[in-house]
Amino acid sequence: MTRYQHLASLLAERIEQGLYRHGEKLPSVRSLSLEHGVSISTVQQAYQVLENQQLIVPRPRSGYFVAPRKMQPPEPAMTRPVQRPVEVTQWDEVMTLLDGRSDKNLLTFGGGAPDISHPSLKPLWREMSRVVQHNLQEVFSYDDLAGRQELREQIARLMLDGGANITADELIITSGCHNALSVALLAVCKPGDIVAVESPCYYGTMQLLRSFDIKAIEIPTDSQTGISVEALELALEQWPIKGVILVPNCNNPLGFIMPEPRKRAVLALAQRHDIVIFEDDIYGELATDYPRPRTINSYDIDGRVVLCSSFTKTLAPGLRVGWIAPGRYRERVLQMKYAASGTNVPATQLAVAAFIRDGHYHRHLRRMRLHYQRQMEIYTCWVREYFPCGICVTRPKGGFMLWIELPESVDMVCVARQLTRLKIRVAPGSLFSASGKYRNCLRINCALPTSERHQQALKQVGEALHHAMEES
Amino acid sequence: MTRYQHLASLLAERIEQGLYRHGEKLPSVRSLSLEHGVSISTVQQAYQVLENQQLIVPRPRSGYFVAPRKMQPPEPAMTRPVQRPVEVTQWDEVMTLLDGRSDKNLLTFGGGAPDISHPSLKPLWREMSRVVQHNLQEVFSYDDLAGRQELREQIARLMLDGGANITADELIITSGCHNALSVALLAVCKPGDIVAVESPCYYGTMQLLRSFDIKAIEIPTDSQTGISVEALELALEQWPIKGVILVPNCNNPLGFIMPEPRKRAVLALAQRHDIVIFEDDIYGELATDYPRPRTINSYDIDGRVVLCSSFTKTLAPGLRVGWIAPGRYRERVLQMKYAASGTNVPATQLAVAAFIRDGHYHRHLRRMRLHYQRQMEIYTCWVREYFPCGICVTRPKGGFMLWIELPESVDMVCVARQLTRLKIRVAPGSLFSASGKYRNCLRINCALPTSERHQQALKQVGEALHHAMEES
Repeated sequence: MTRYQHLASLLAERIEQGLYRHGEKLPSVRSLSLEHGVSISTVQQAYQVLENQQLIVPRPRSGYFVAPRKMQPPEPAMTRPVQRPVEVTQWDEVMTLLDGRSDKNLLTFGGGAPDISHPSLKPLWREMSRVVQHNLQEVFSYDDLAGRQELREQIARLMLDGGANITADELIITSGCHNALSVALLAVCKPGDIVAVESPCYYGTMQLLRSFDIKAIEIPTDSQTGISVEALELALEQWPIKGVILVPNCNNPLGFIMPEPRKRAVLALAQRHDIVIFEDDIYGELATDYPRPRTINSYDIDGRVVLCSSFTKTLAPGLRVGWIAPGRYRERVLQMKYAASGTNVPATQLAVAAFIRDGHYHRHLRRMRLHYQRQMEIYTCWVREYFPCGICVTRPKGGFMLWIELPESVDMVCVARQLTRLKIRVAPGSLFSASGKYRNCLRINCALPTSERHQQALKQVGEALHHAMEES
Repeated sequence: MTRYQHLASLLAERIEQGLYRHGEKLPSVRSLSLEHGVSISTVQQAYQVLENQQLIVPRPRSGYFVAPRKMQPPEPAMTRPVQRPVEVTQWDEVMTLLDGRSDKNLLTFGGGAPDISHPSLKPLWREMSRVVQHNLQEVFSYDDLAGRQELREQIARLMLDGGANITADELIITSGCHNALSVALLAVCKPGDIVAVESPCYYGTMQLLRSFDIKAIEIPTDSQTGISVEALELALEQWPIKGVILVPNCNNPLGFIMPEPRKRAVLALAQRHDIVIFEDDIYGELATDYPRPRTINSYDIDGRVVLCSSFTKTLAPGLRVGWIAPGRYRERVLQMKYAASGTNVPATQLAVAAFIRDGHYHRHLRRMRLHYQRQMEIYTCWVREYFPCGICVTRPKGGFMLWIELPESVDMVCVARQLTRLKIRVAPGSLFSASGKYRNCLRINCALPTSERHQQALKQVGEALHHAMEES
């Protein structure tokens, strides 16, 4: 971090903490330069950064002022999907999103990649090199089917933070959270089964259901508190539902954390109707508030909550290290892991285990929680600035995704297609529904840099939206 | 390699090439010491190694002689499995075999691990370190769904050796060959389908069928020429078979290479009955003779031969790098890869691509082909020496597996259980059949070292077999 970036983030923190109030004048360039022992131009650069982030505004001949608190756009209301089991489609649209991953000219606001450029991740690079140099026998041999013991021990310890008391022997390592969920679904469900999902629901999850011929029933979900227990109960009474997939902590795409009473209520409902809960906790460690929220799995008493997670969002996707706490389904999950994906790469598992063991993981998490929070604030500012009026925007409690609801008339699928020509890729909301909802929504990945290039790109998205609204 | 090992392998080569004939006297210790400029004790150690390998025999006061050529035990006859579709079971037995992988006190003749200690593999370790240090962005990011382009290009080039003309864009990287086959099966088959297999058939493949609720029909197979085309045709006329899984090159477990006319005959049959051929080529590169045998895929004209392979046996299992040439099923295979296993680890892919690009792969292959050939000869000697009379042993054309048929009365499942107590694990033949055949057979992995410890262990297996025959 350069000197001016450091100063900018210090000032941003003070504004956030209310030390400088909205509308208040900020210290002069000269006095800040003296206070921090930096050059005048460093202070000017820092102020420029904050101005770009719309945290401060310059007034000619008076200096800089903290930007007035703008009206936050409202949050989206409870969703109202079609409440009957449907077959998932839209593979082609998802494939288009996946396809752009390695194209460096493409700005992919629609993807789910985390920020892997942070210095606190450096020890992981070192561990990877060390593992390859010193554990050759292990690195090149077959892994145990359940995964490396030393990693499972570290994960068992991490899971205590989410309230779960699970031993290393109960855990099974997978090739990421997506793979964990896929193995869990294969272990529990058969083709033709019905599984309930939050609505909107992450498109990758929906594609799993599609591939395994499982029908989805979308349940109304509140953007601040999560799935409607009443609506889920109604669905359970009407349909032979096998399980429900939930992302209760830092939901993807809505960003909510389900309140604890609701977590318990959903579990009680699952027990009453004897269904399985597939809990996706991939963003759970990235909750803004510390300590992190509890998992539904931590309340489980009869092994019906299968918890799936990974280090894809907290560390890096290229590691391909995830895990399952399979509850009562351990044997079936092992079988399906063997069949669907086989054993995993030992090298990345050993590196992650060492990274956690040496205390780097929690340090990195602390940084990233703050970092993503600030990123989401900046992106929210830009959205407010560049997007049309009359939109709803989520206020995520963690993770790094924003969900934006535009007026009904906007067709994001069309807009997304136009944006592809500008080398910008967004995820239209329709990908998050099996029944054609949310065509007027989009999800934005705030883990992308807040560089001028990204700001300009988001401005272009805004312009395309304005244009779409004028046309409709 | 130490000096005496080097000398031993030189002498072994000369014996093999016929420079020293069977029964002929070898040079004296003194003259060899002078010829090679090594100490007397080095020559003595080298002769000791060859004696242990039963290549030479000492005669008191006369020196060393090349061992007389022993009668080779006969090869197993054509197998006769039950010819109707059956459900695969035996997960527990397979799980027991998998479980022992990381127990260093266990000698696992029953596993499929290759020898990863050879010096020609060293550049791969270096490439791994280099990749981690210099390609951080790629190592930590999401992989393309189809896998790294630079690796697919290298594989496309390798596949020319097997006669196949496939572009990098047609290939899909997987997490090993087992995963390739699993994705291929998921892409083509539905639960309840019937798939034909060679008999005996690798137990991992059978477990895939079991997990995906696919029935297996075992087809009579000759230990020297492969699956019976007539029997397959008969089965195709009787049952609605979706496809056939074949390991035509260096078959696991029988070690045969299917003659080219038979490969073409099976393909013609598949075309006539419109079925898919799943070709498992994992051992194909390890054929003893060079150039390597052609794949059935190389004769394919309408994309019905889905070729699955990996670097698990040729390089190392811990890499988890395999591939599919999916023919007409590319789109479905990509979908099922996304669903079943997700994207792969970029680090190992990049390391393998560099290893091949720099010419290390072919050098390593040349070494390993010779190495495994010698290993199989030594293990065959030991089997002949320690096992009861009246057995049949395969004479593999490549790979590193021996298949041994004992008298009908021997129950290998029982013997295997007894051997577990001695910390020795073997793969009883029954794992290779869905209909309870081959209980009197076993498969031996000759990639294990030929150390005294392993010799003793194989002797113990022999003793257990003698004991079992006396009892029965």
